[in-house]
Amino acid sequence: MTVEKCNPDRLWNSIMEIGQIGHTEVEGSKVGGCHRLALTDKDKQARDLFVGWAKALGCSLRVDAIGNLFLRRNGLDNTLMPVMTGSHLDTQPTGGKFDGVYGCLAGLEALRCLEEKNIQTLRPIEVVVWTNEEGARFKPAMLGSGVYAGVFKLNDVLATKDEAGISLGEELDRLGYKEQTSVDTPECYQYYELHIEQGPVLEALDIDLGIVAGVLGMRWYEVEVTGRSCHAGPSPMNLRNDALVGVAEMISELTKIAANHSHDSRCTIGELNIPNASTNVSAGKVKFSLDLREGRLADLDELQTKAFETIHRIAFHHKLEIGIKETWSLPPCPFDETCLVNIQQACAASYPNLNPHTLISGAGHDAVYVSRVAPTAMIFVPSEDGLSHNEREYTSPEQLEKGCDVLLNTLILSANSN
Amino acid sequence: MTVEKCNPDRLWNSIMEIGQIGHTEVEGSKVGGCHRLALTDKDKQARDLFVGWAKALGCSLRVDAIGNLFLRRNGLDNTLMPVMTGSHLDTQPTGGKFDGVYGCLAGLEALRCLEEKNIQTLRPIEVVVWTNEEGARFKPAMLGSGVYAGVFKLNDVLATKDEAGISLGEELDRLGYKEQTSVDTPECYQYYELHIEQGPVLEALDIDLGIVAGVLGMRWYEVEVTGRSCHAGPSPMNLRNDALVGVAEMISELTKIAANHSHDSRCTIGELNIPNASTNVSAGKVKFSLDLREGRLADLDELQTKAFETIHRIAFHHKLEIGIKETWSLPPCPFDETCLVNIQQACAASYPNLNPHTLISGAGHDAVYVSRVAPTAMIFVPSEDGLSHNEREYTSPEQLEKGCDVLLNTLILSANSN
Repeated sequence: MTVEKCNPDRLWNSIMEIGQIGHTEVEGSKVGGCHRLALTDKDKQARDLFVGWAKALGCSLRVDAIGNLFLRRNGLDNTLMPVMTGSHLDTQPTGGKFDGVYGCLAGLEALRCLEEKNIQTLRPIEVVVWTNEEGARFKPAMLGSGVYAGVFKLNDVLATKDEAGISLGEELDRLGYKEQTSVDTPECYQYYELHIEQGPVLEALDIDLGIVAGVLGMRWYEVEVTGRSCHAGPSPMNLRNDALVGVAEMISELTKIAANHSHDSRCTIGELNIPNASTNVSAGKVKFSLDLREGRLADLDELQTKAFETIHRIAFHHKLEIGIKETWSLPPCPFDETCLVNIQQACAASYPNLNPHTLISGAGHDAVYVSRVAPTAMIFVPSEDGLSHNEREYTSPEQLEKGCDVLLNTLILSANSN
Repeated sequence: MTVEKCNPDRLWNSIMEIGQIGHTEVEGSKVGGCHRLALTDKDKQARDLFVGWAKALGCSLRVDAIGNLFLRRNGLDNTLMPVMTGSHLDTQPTGGKFDGVYGCLAGLEALRCLEEKNIQTLRPIEVVVWTNEEGARFKPAMLGSGVYAGVFKLNDVLATKDEAGISLGEELDRLGYKEQTSVDTPECYQYYELHIEQGPVLEALDIDLGIVAGVLGMRWYEVEVTGRSCHAGPSPMNLRNDALVGVAEMISELTKIAANHSHDSRCTIGELNIPNASTNVSAGKVKFSLDLREGRLADLDELQTKAFETIHRIAFHHKLEIGIKETWSLPPCPFDETCLVNIQQACAASYPNLNPHTLISGAGHDAVYVSRVAPTAMIFVPSEDGLSHNEREYTSPEQLEKGCDVLLNTLILSANSN
């Protein structure tokens, strides 16, 4: 295949320019952070800038009823379904300049290259900006892609309010980004999303490109452990029934199980509360959250079984009562084989010596929902120190360039297949 | 020695009668609980009832400037310092009928026996009711005995306010229990306090009487453990720096150290907080309280050394930062040998087959402060299920009788020594 090349300076400068909208100065951050919550005035400024750049290339804009933006460059046969790429322009309250933004601007850079070199593809290519990916202003996350994929109902999402009581629908009207009254039936041949990793794996391996084979399945639980509280003084250690001592053993063993279960296993105890806690009273009750993740459904089931067995065994040993409640779950999301092969080919052609690492994303992305209605895969570049949702988030210009080149050649491959 | 015997029905009935003041009905409680906070109208009712009973025996009442009540039965030589016994009549918000009350009413029962049988002692005997032992209304605990022993300054304590902003001094004035303007120089030959155990040791050993050789030394710390938070998904287990995983190992090891250190060792982690906790974020920081107790100063020092070494070793292994701050401490309080021998003799005479258990109190009592100004020791009877500060608190009439008999004969022994 012919290999095309992005303009790395233009890509970097565009990311930096759009990052000025909501820019935050932070000590220890190489390029500063970004505060640009979904559907605020700053988000509109970023959208306007982005749309202006795309229109300058001759792209057409379509906005769906949830405010997702589709910027289209026509192909030779516009009756064919478009290839899509994109991500989001909103950030966390103390977010960085790359999460989401990179995927949108690398898509734009791909269109700029094609236009500059006057390359025609068979299929149209669309760069998408999904609404409210972060979930920082309107909950839950990934509302735009969720409505697009039929996971959420349009009217429910339009009625969703932020903490100030303003609805998402009101904000779309106010900002003028709600141009149609219904969400289109998704028309997408293949969807590719380029993103920073948000974790430390690629950096640890010193590999500049990751091919994302899917997203981990996730299950959340609330675990309640009941023993008996007693005064810290009069009760000898051997006559206690301390719920926290049992829970400590559970945390140690659960995290060990995940460390040894499979390469994709994750076990996180993020929240822990002792009701009526007091320095001189041993814990009668402890509640903690449990977040289990695995790449395949059978592995997730097995991880859950092992975790539950461990909790019950330790509780029995310490004479504690146990309650476990599942509060949320998402099945594992394997990405499309054909899309993955396209990325591999594009990477091999662009960077024959790179040897990309195939990994499973532990975090959700718009691609998870899009994959329910179109063949989908993702590309990762490293995040320095594994940071994201953080003002110190950083990926080097060279790494951004490699990811963008792979995306560009993947899009060409995909858009020329029929 | 001649052995005297209390009237167990009179003792029980008096405890139940005074327990009606503030009585609470609670499911699963054999005799109900008690809600009688310090220096409330109910506390005054209980004091009035108690003072009335003592005056009916011919006792004189002295009230000091902090509202402690001294009910005196004269001896043959009233120039000698009195033997004192007593405890407190205030309760926790959801307290029981025995904590404190038993010590006061067993003292009264002792005086009743002496009066009934017309027994004269060489020294005067005083039954004391200490003000605000619980610390549930005015903080800290043991204010009355603390002022008596010179641990707290009178004016500071009088100015101490409850949550409603009412000062302790105002309440003393209102209730008419502040008859002198200064606290006396303590004049006490020996002090004996009879109390329910508040722990499970005597019940577990099936022994109805404990001779309390002292009170554990206590040290409180705040420990702060800092790792690095990361997203629960993208970060593989082996690349994490989870503060909670380190803390879990600390909790397991610290409690094991205390279990194996000495019979009197206590280690309690009662409070644990994860700032900015979230289900899908591993803990970047964990703060926990640490309460260490030991019977001897050298043992407490050694326990602290082992605990700190363990915390630092685990932190090093998990690449965590540690901060430890001592927030409060009380040295071990060994009771007086002569007083302990008197209790042993009285017990051997009253109950030759009882074989009392010598133990160290893990909880503080008025006796801890009194011991700073007078030879002191304590007697314990079992608490069912080790409960105290609890509406289900219970000690059987037979156990209360034994404790009261031992107190009675101890007081006679002490009051006849010169």
